[in-house]
Amino acid sequence: MENTQFRRATAADLPQIVKLLVDDELGRLRETPGPPPDVKYAQAFAAIDSDPNQFLAVVEQSGTLVGCLQLSFIPGLSRAGLWRGQIESVRIASSRRGSGLGRMLIEWAIEECRNHGCGLVQLTTDKARPDALRFYESLGFSASHIGLKLVLN
Amino acid sequence: MENTQFRRATAADLPQIVKLLVDDELGRLRETPGPPPDVKYAQAFAAIDSDPNQFLAVVEQSGTLVGCLQLSFIPGLSRAGLWRGQIESVRIASSRRGSGLGRMLIEWAIEECRNHGCGLVQLTTDKARPDALRFYESLGFSASHIGLKLVLN
Repeated sequence: MENTQFRRATAADLPQIVKLLVDDELGRLRETPGPPPDVKYAQAFAAIDSDPNQFLAVVEQSGTLVGCLQLSFIPGLSRAGLWRGQIESVRIASSRRGSGLGRMLIEWAIEECRNHGCGLVQLTTDKARPDALRFYESLGFSASHIGLKLVLN
Repeated sequence: MENTQFRRATAADLPQIVKLLVDDELGRLRETPGPPPDVKYAQAFAAIDSDPNQFLAVVEQSGTLVGCLQLSFIPGLSRAGLWRGQIESVRIASSRRGSGLGRMLIEWAIEECRNHGCGLVQLTTDKARPDALRFYESLGFSASHIGLKLVLN
């Protein structure tokens, strides 16, 4: 995969990123891609892009976006002031799944966390994605925690 | 609990917060409280305090810190640009456990997330804390995810 580039997302990438978010078993149920795309995507992009501790990343192959994820660098007191790198909203285009690209993306993200001074990388995966759990465990992650969510109305 | 105050932590609170972090079955194994306390705690406090999307909170009763947690407000594209409120490093002083203070603290934190515009509150709890899981479920959280961690060396 010689033409694979990992880079920070720009505003021009937003329509393709939203397509990636929808191109997913769970994502298609909870995104509002339009057209026109919900204005909240542009607002969220601006909030991410202006925050030095957020890093929205994309994977590009031959001019096409084929993957994305968001890194959050979180300072904290516990574990002796450890910075955490948090991975969220990982997507690989359905046309590229099974090619090893997801593994390359997560390995790249782990290195970004290391370069940022993080001592821990964390993420949660939906219990409805058993393949994802095995994938992350194969990358060295330990499934030590339970992830809880509360939707606010 | 008339004298219970929830407020943003200040640098002067730091020694007591580190004591709370240590006053915990898992925390005592991974904190380095000194004396003197590891300088990394002060560095981490400065990073948290200067980031508008981090909110280190303490609970005070009659001039004593009896609880703490950290809120992180995380902008994101997925779920139509939803902001997430993330709760981390929750502690209640061992002398006050079982008094309902933890419930008050989490309910207060959920309201802070709502006031900040978050549509979701999320946290992870170690599988080694079965009581904590039941506690969060009783507050309405859904244990829909698995939390994975990778320690970087």
